[in-house]
Amino acid sequence: MTEKSYIPPRVWTWDKESGGAFANINRPVAGPTHDKVLPVGKHPLQLYSLATPNGQKVTIMLEELLEAGKDAEYDAWLIRINEGDQFGSGFVSINPNSKIPALMDHGASPPQRLFESGSILVYLAEKFGAFLPTDPARRTETLNWLFWQMGSAPLLGGGFGHFYAYAPEKFEYAINRYAMEAKRQLDVLDRQLAEHEYIAGDEYTIADMAIWPWYGGVALGRAYDAAEFLDVGSYSNVQRWAKQIDARPAVKRGRMVNKAMGPLEEQLRERHDAGDFATRTQDKLQGAG
Amino acid sequence: MTEKSYIPPRVWTWDKESGGAFANINRPVAGPTHDKVLPVGKHPLQLYSLATPNGQKVTIMLEELLEAGKDAEYDAWLIRINEGDQFGSGFVSINPNSKIPALMDHGASPPQRLFESGSILVYLAEKFGAFLPTDPARRTETLNWLFWQMGSAPLLGGGFGHFYAYAPEKFEYAINRYAMEAKRQLDVLDRQLAEHEYIAGDEYTIADMAIWPWYGGVALGRAYDAAEFLDVGSYSNVQRWAKQIDARPAVKRGRMVNKAMGPLEEQLRERHDAGDFATRTQDKLQGAG
Repeated sequence: MTEKSYIPPRVWTWDKESGGAFANINRPVAGPTHDKVLPVGKHPLQLYSLATPNGQKVTIMLEELLEAGKDAEYDAWLIRINEGDQFGSGFVSINPNSKIPALMDHGASPPQRLFESGSILVYLAEKFGAFLPTDPARRTETLNWLFWQMGSAPLLGGGFGHFYAYAPEKFEYAINRYAMEAKRQLDVLDRQLAEHEYIAGDEYTIADMAIWPWYGGVALGRAYDAAEFLDVGSYSNVQRWAKQIDARPAVKRGRMVNKAMGPLEEQLRERHDAGDFATRTQDKLQGAG
Repeated sequence: MTEKSYIPPRVWTWDKESGGAFANINRPVAGPTHDKVLPVGKHPLQLYSLATPNGQKVTIMLEELLEAGKDAEYDAWLIRINEGDQFGSGFVSINPNSKIPALMDHGASPPQRLFESGSILVYLAEKFGAFLPTDPARRTETLNWLFWQMGSAPLLGGGFGHFYAYAPEKFEYAINRYAMEAKRQLDVLDRQLAEHEYIAGDEYTIADMAIWPWYGGVALGRAYDAAEFLDVGSYSNVQRWAKQIDARPAVKRGRMVNKAMGPLEEQLRERHDAGDFATRTQDKLQGAG
């Protein structure tokens, strides 16, 4: 029986055998699966995350704030989504949606929970007065693009990335559908970046920090092994911008935090202090010795 | 050749024949396809939209503002996405992403463009001082859920809705993938609404206005003909909340604005004045006579 003759049942039921590469972490119900108290470190800001694009948005923001001299020190704890850490009771109490990143601000009274990377970026920008312009027109344009990212990337990641790179089979219809949309989104950015240095104008903002981990990653050939398929080199303004952001010291650090895959020298699984980046290198050298 | 044996090409190219029900409005490039100046009415706020869930968010917000006594009068112009109105040069200059809703505030100096429904909701809430709490904790929780909607609904609408209702064939894998996620999202809301009257607590906010058009629509059986398939009746707290919001006079009016399908008595294709709702009924009666 081919896909074409499938007739959905009257009522959907959960077949735990289906689901592709992420079948073990996708569920049709919410809520915690087990009791687990989360660790709390010494800083007011406690981040529970993983270095996916959505996770990188927040670690890049925090490292940029520190680079700008703001008092934004933080502890970053690793949430291993393939092992179900996001379904622990402590994590769910911060983010009932069981997705990384999740943040607690123990400096707020009462302590403030934050979920959704876009919400975290706005909160940190307003708390520290940085990377979200206060001029009304610039602020609004920044939020336009921040929300654009939130609504668009699910079609890039959950759509294109899933069907091109992760689904158990290559479905032509789905790959075509999402490749077209991924290219359209890259072209939207390319036209904007033809006229502006940064996404929302001539200032580096949280819109860049939200968009770069997704679209910069694709443009730089780091995501889905799809650089040739999507012809990412043809988006010359995105290329210029992606490389420019990639060269920022805070971005380099932010990409390493909560990273638990890839070359060891790129990983800082937990981060509790600015000195951890140096220590990590030493650990790595000791490990290699 | 079945779907299972598909091998993607090295470089994706546009096959204009594929794409399902929305093939004629999906493109792999951005930018305008034709010159078109948009009409401008008498009010500072000029909305260019269609009564999809994303469009309804904004018309509901504007009608709620008016209901609350705010000076939020607006003109709402119809953008027929199936006819490509969103690719006109005037529309693209407001929203380079070519999606509804798009808003111009001619009361700002210089006039302010707004795109992305979430950005529009935040802007209007701050401009008129309503439906986004000023208490920091409540404001943050409202934004958490507003961003949740922006990141989640593309999997409900562009994912589940597309593959269950609109795709040219029934793809079992894709329907299963997105039905599971749609049910998980409904359960996230159901658990939150078990403990709170509204999404972000005990106040009706822009988080409700963003989430209701999508998830309320599904819960009330108005979307995708999927009420039985997703067993929406089992989400009893979502049901309670969905009906509560549905009964609000401003919501009833907001759902009618820019509506160009369905029963004639539900349609107000353009809206330029609070009196248009009554006039529409008269027109309809005259037309029927």
